Amino acid sequence: MACARLLRSLLTRNPARIPVVVRSYHHYRIKDLTGDSVCKAGDKINVKGWVKSVRNMKGNLFVDVNDGSTATNFQLVISKDKQLDTAYGSSVDASGVLVASPKNQLELQVDSLKEIGTCPLSEGFPFYPKKSYPPEYVRNHLHLRSRVSTMCSTFRARHEAQRAFNEYLHQNGFIQIHTPVLTSNDCEGAGEAFLVKPLNDQLLKGMAKANVALEHAYFDRPTFLTVSGQLHLEAMSHGLDKVYTFGPTFRAENCKSNIHLSEFYMLELEEAFMESVEELADRIEDMLKRVTVQMLDRSEPDIRLVRKQTSSDAERKDAFGWLEKPFPRLTYDEAIAVLIANKDKLKSPVVPEEGINKEQELLLVEHCQGPLFVCYWPKEIKSFYMRENQQNGNLVDALDLLVPHVGELVGGSVREDSYERLQRKLPNTDALRWYLDLRKFGSVTTAGFGLGFERYLSWVLNVHNIKDVIPFPRWAHNCVM
Amino acid sequence: MACARLLRSLLTRNPARIPVVVRSYHHYRIKDLTGDSVCKAGDKINVKGWVKSVRNMKGNLFVDVNDGSTATNFQLVISKDKQLDTAYGSSVDASGVLVASPKNQLELQVDSLKEIGTCPLSEGFPFYPKKSYPPEYVRNHLHLRSRVSTMCSTFRARHEAQRAFNEYLHQNGFIQIHTPVLTSNDCEGAGEAFLVKPLNDQLLKGMAKANVALEHAYFDRPTFLTVSGQLHLEAMSHGLDKVYTFGPTFRAENCKSNIHLSEFYMLELEEAFMESVEELADRIEDMLKRVTVQMLDRSEPDIRLVRKQTSSDAERKDAFGWLEKPFPRLTYDEAIAVLIANKDKLKSPVVPEEGINKEQELLLVEHCQGPLFVCYWPKEIKSFYMRENQQNGNLVDALDLLVPHVGELVGGSVREDSYERLQRKLPNTDALRWYLDLRKFGSVTTAGFGLGFERYLSWVLNVHNIKDVIPFPRWAHNCVM
Repeated sequence: MACARLLRSLLTRNPARIPVVVRSYHHYRIKDLTGDSVCKAGDKINVKGWVKSVRNMKGNLFVDVNDGSTATNFQLVISKDKQLDTAYGSSVDASGVLVASPKNQLELQVDSLKEIGTCPLSEGFPFYPKKSYPPEYVRNHLHLRSRVSTMCSTFRARHEAQRAFNEYLHQNGFIQIHTPVLTSNDCEGAGEAFLVKPLNDQLLKGMAKANVALEHAYFDRPTFLTVSGQLHLEAMSHGLDKVYTFGPTFRAENCKSNIHLSEFYMLELEEAFMESVEELADRIEDMLKRVTVQMLDRSEPDIRLVRKQTSSDAERKDAFGWLEKPFPRLTYDEAIAVLIANKDKLKSPVVPEEGINKEQELLLVEHCQGPLFVCYWPKEIKSFYMRENQQNGNLVDALDLLVPHVGELVGGSVREDSYERLQRKLPNTDALRWYLDLRKFGSVTTAGFGLGFERYLSWVLNVHNIKDVIPFPRWAHNCVM
Repeated sequence: MACARLLRSLLTRNPARIPVVVRSYHHYRIKDLTGDSVCKAGDKINVKGWVKSVRNMKGNLFVDVNDGSTATNFQLVISKDKQLDTAYGSSVDASGVLVASPKNQLELQVDSLKEIGTCPLSEGFPFYPKKSYPPEYVRNHLHLRSRVSTMCSTFRARHEAQRAFNEYLHQNGFIQIHTPVLTSNDCEGAGEAFLVKPLNDQLLKGMAKANVALEHAYFDRPTFLTVSGQLHLEAMSHGLDKVYTFGPTFRAENCKSNIHLSEFYMLELEEAFMESVEELADRIEDMLKRVTVQMLDRSEPDIRLVRKQTSSDAERKDAFGWLEKPFPRLTYDEAIAVLIANKDKLKSPVVPEEGINKEQELLLVEHCQGPLFVCYWPKEIKSFYMRENQQNGNLVDALDLLVPHVGELVGGSVREDSYERLQRKLPNTDALRWYLDLRKFGSVTTAGFGLGFERYLSWVLNVHNIKDVIPFPRWAHNCVM
């Protein structure tokens, strides 16, 4: 192991053995040919990709290709004497010489073009050239969505957003913990969990035990898909301090709303030695601003392409003004007061004992002209694991972050750190005895939150349905592929 | 959006609003106090963490604490006149002045110490001071494993390994695609899938449809937990080219082996325009070497701590010699010939038609003195999606990478790119018609692989059971928490 540095230097001297096939036309990806290109006019190069459009002008063909590496298409110019042809949707392999276009962008004067695979529209390819389709239509062809430019931009932006969250958290000392998808924890009681069992009945029979229902024989107990990794994170936080999880989370709801999915990604974080709602709000606000700035920097062309399709002029203007403003922090009581003062604008009644619904969340966002925190909620409508407020025992030290477009983006709290209070509130003492243990052995106060990743993307990209920011959406009656 | 640069500069001028509480003792995490410290003797600082050991020497207390940020404990020195006390396992908050120890490491001369939570061993804390426990015992206390130093090192190393894979792939142009956990794809037919349904029977009844069994009413069809994201990745690769997925994967097997889990992490990658087994092997070898060197560089203290517990002297010597050697590439026929020549060392018979079992994999690894590829496998024992070899139609363009300790680490192939051949081999034409479509519209050749992340960690850390390199292991009859 002591030789790690030596090995590193060896590897640096022997760079990648990845295909450097000797040929006169060196292969490049299109992102290296557009923008700040690594190539120059006169270079002989090769590109591979899919044909986005073909224009015939005076017998010359102008072909836009894209290989998925960037939002910008790359133009091939095929002079008529070459007698080469291709068509929209095909996959191609093209070699030639780079030339500067009249707009001073690089394009390829094609020497040879091979069509790898054709794209026979008449045999059922769902996307025609120069047409744009409503998202519902595109969503009906999940396996071909990666041929649609705005979808590719969305998935690249998703990739960069995820990287930005991971980087922010690593730089701030957090360890990613893979909390389990399969769990025997009693869910929060709302009956929104999926139950899991082996498909193979023979296997189950072979594993049967007395006192265990056959359907639960694989794990000896009912086993669910996770609805939250928070409790597991709390365990890890006692010893590792700063931890997070960022993975699939599940809800079995019969719901068609544009902000719900049966399988969605949640970023959950837990931080030990954190004792106040204010520190937690600081963490969330700092993270969201820095991550978004990072993402805008790295994904601007993709974000621009997506927002161009989804946004009105008004929405495009000042879309990211919130990055410069502190997020207002209202108490729950203050938020209710705002709602009551504006009740004429609401269809739904304001009932403080029942919380704040989606319509009301969006009114608060409008009132504050951007994201806001609502802090210190009534104990009765929040979860057992939230700490009772020391000044007012009817409240808990919890917060929600509300943002334009989707409403609740983040929910978090300082966790109940008193063994006795927690024991009184625990919904199922037997199954969660381990959770009580955390308050018995080397206990510390922790705080944390969960952020819906698709809601974040939906907000930042201004995509109106979260089904269109996840590669393979699953919801009630829908699980294609 | 045009203002992204401005905003970035604004944010840079207004750094994090994260707690900079004004106090005379500035808080640091222990990783910033050990190794290349950001502090110096004389600084007044505060630390928080868990007590790992307490020694009383001539009335002075020497307390080792750790906060999960590093493998190295930090020493508090409490002079007897302070009359402060604490004990193993407790959580503490200590302030004082940094001094250089006789070994020239920084330690804390404590001014004040607050015990946040005690750790009453007599009430059932499973880990006693100065004792080490077998992994099976530690595994029986999942919620407290984060109090065990080697487990914390393992999870930090896992975090760094994952980062290294993600960074390598991003730098090489790959986009991370979150392939779904829930899928209606017919699994590969081995009957190893888990079936999913809502826990709430009322919900199911409310969603019932004619012609759909009640248990499948939520998604209108049987729905499984993914056994592989490969087919989904292939769809994305047609358009995005270089894609990968890195997430939980599931197998319902009644298996107690030390290299199987019901829920494990798999890194799967798909690359368009890749046409040969040799290029695929290059990619895998390059990735594994660079990722491991990166990880050794960043996690050396953690890896050393774990390997010290798990490895013999022989195992510690030259553990990473493989980083300097090319991986041998045997054909399947050559591998079989090696096994036949060494059959006296095997308990199991060599049957070329049946593949290579675990014992035989490990013999090949021993024979090659390290990792090796086995390439070009008999068609009969491999999957329908692997491309038929052009020289020998009885073979497919597939490879396995075998490594010490675990055997098969990676399996990959060039994918069948002929619509007609694929149609003949497809196990379920109706459910996988979309997969055939990929070969009809803008088809390209793709290649890819799957790598078992826990097996990788098990190999690199020399941990003998993969249940001990994942935070919450799930296997037959075991799903605690």
